[in-house]
Amino acid sequence: MRAAVLHAPGDIRVEEIADPKIIAPTDAVIRLTAACVCGSDLWPYRGVESLDGPMPMGHEYVGVVEEVGSDVTNVQPGQYVVGSFVASCGTCEICRSGYPSSCVHRVFMAQVGTQSERALIPHADGTLVPLPGTPDADLVPDLLAASDVLGTGWFGAVAAEAGPGRTVAVVGDGAVGLLAVLAARQLGAERIIAMSRHEPRRRLALEFGATDIVSERGDEGVAKLKELTGGLGAHSVVEAVGTQESMQQAIRSARPGGHVGFVGVNHDVTLSGEELFFSQVHLHGGPAPVRRFLPELIDLIWQRKINPGKVFDLVVPLDEAPEAYRAMDERRAIKAMLTL
Amino acid sequence: MRAAVLHAPGDIRVEEIADPKIIAPTDAVIRLTAACVCGSDLWPYRGVESLDGPMPMGHEYVGVVEEVGSDVTNVQPGQYVVGSFVASCGTCEICRSGYPSSCVHRVFMAQVGTQSERALIPHADGTLVPLPGTPDADLVPDLLAASDVLGTGWFGAVAAEAGPGRTVAVVGDGAVGLLAVLAARQLGAERIIAMSRHEPRRRLALEFGATDIVSERGDEGVAKLKELTGGLGAHSVVEAVGTQESMQQAIRSARPGGHVGFVGVNHDVTLSGEELFFSQVHLHGGPAPVRRFLPELIDLIWQRKINPGKVFDLVVPLDEAPEAYRAMDERRAIKAMLTL
Repeated sequence: MRAAVLHAPGDIRVEEIADPKIIAPTDAVIRLTAACVCGSDLWPYRGVESLDGPMPMGHEYVGVVEEVGSDVTNVQPGQYVVGSFVASCGTCEICRSGYPSSCVHRVFMAQVGTQSERALIPHADGTLVPLPGTPDADLVPDLLAASDVLGTGWFGAVAAEAGPGRTVAVVGDGAVGLLAVLAARQLGAERIIAMSRHEPRRRLALEFGATDIVSERGDEGVAKLKELTGGLGAHSVVEAVGTQESMQQAIRSARPGGHVGFVGVNHDVTLSGEELFFSQVHLHGGPAPVRRFLPELIDLIWQRKINPGKVFDLVVPLDEAPEAYRAMDERRAIKAMLTL
Repeated sequence: MRAAVLHAPGDIRVEEIADPKIIAPTDAVIRLTAACVCGSDLWPYRGVESLDGPMPMGHEYVGVVEEVGSDVTNVQPGQYVVGSFVASCGTCEICRSGYPSSCVHRVFMAQVGTQSERALIPHADGTLVPLPGTPDADLVPDLLAASDVLGTGWFGAVAAEAGPGRTVAVVGDGAVGLLAVLAARQLGAERIIAMSRHEPRRRLALEFGATDIVSERGDEGVAKLKELTGGLGAHSVVEAVGTQESMQQAIRSARPGGHVGFVGVNHDVTLSGEELFFSQVHLHGGPAPVRRFLPELIDLIWQRKINPGKVFDLVVPLDEAPEAYRAMDERRAIKAMLTL
């Protein structure tokens, strides 16, 4: 089958690799309807994460089940499914407590690869959620977004306790940040302040429900945000970047007793214990437990109440994955979808 | 009046200083019934926190109101009162949201000093809680503990979401850690694992409700704790030390989705963003909003349901404050009370 494979930083090639095969009785194989490139795919693409030889890329997926292992009972061949970017058993104590992304048997789909025609899904019963039927073509981008960016933005908003009466600030205007805005709106937040300086992203933030835009960054962004919140800071802050600057900005933007949900994959970030102590914020985040939210997200999408697929502002065939990566790396695209 | 004053690291003197006077109309002056030395007093005593000239010490207090400013309406001269180690207005948005220790008008009582015969209490209406009457003498240590160590241990347990069905680990066997054990018990925790290697402290931990004791520290302590919790870690972890090692131990002791309440005043602690991200714990702490809990704590003490004053294993007159500091510094005493 055809798959996008990273050979070295900046060197993505679409090439033939072996078709996936059921190994464990809990596996499934799906045929993808669409794939996409994630902000976190850029970390190895940029050489920030190291590479041990050629790596099939991607971890988001929507598609049709082709084959299941002998122990799989929740999904069957022919069903349309969406799943999380982390495969999880669904039965361990951590899964049952709502943290499938830290499942004791978890498999990061990034280690499997899903920018390809087919994908192996470990722990199919715990991981995949069948759709109510075959989706209309225009719903496919929305469903694909649920697999990671929507679920991750949603978790950021939940971790930040976005809700009625609360002012929510979102640091980061990538797809995850923009979908955290959408999530905060759905969760009933009173005011949503998107931190963004890029016109197309600001527009999408407003469309998704942002009430205010702040273009300043770092401590200037914090000062501006405090100005907008009576000097106190936001009740809820979603961090959706993962750098030293964005984490500090997020923590400093929350009021004492406020909640910071951080979902940007942290790279070389160190936090001062003293600052955290005196900030008195709640801090929670990590790889989003997307599977927890999937049934609700699929329902919202199926009923056409949300339109998260709008984050895909570049759609190209899988064979043009190199251009999709370049466009995202150069911030010409918010998020690129790969058609199959 | 007589007061304990720190002149240089290790140099505590009890000497005459000016009596406190009402300055703002929201002030009160109290006559202390008893005072005490806190683990956090040891930071400047040990020279870890720097000193700008002689500093009256102490921030915990129980006593009788002597005089109030013209705007004070909640307490009156003659009333027995307890208050938090942070004076707070009680009316700002942060106070009303349950975080009086981050009140926009807060005054840390450590900047005022309470190891003395009398003390000035700013924001008396927001800070002081009148007792139901004159306490029996044996309740005075319990009420004094409520002012900080009990309230701080309690906040640690609340921030760690200690409660029914949950396994709580407590890192730190000082007075705050021991009282976090007591708090976890009161909050209904199923299992309470105290990390302690000192026999008198272990005994008190068991008396306060610990079900298990782990004497290993650092990563060995983490390994032992995981052994006791099916490899997963505790649901709730209270951190009550404030060092690099104890913070790391606390974070590594919590399971994914678990809660770490950190109340040890952090000094030179840096946390890895990556580790926090993948740990998927909730982290919350800071200077305890003791005032939030005081009415409930006073009630429990008044009804003799809890006995937090047991942490005072050294009782000396105020004039012997130097010995009280030495005994705590050398860990000969868990916590020293100063009689007046």
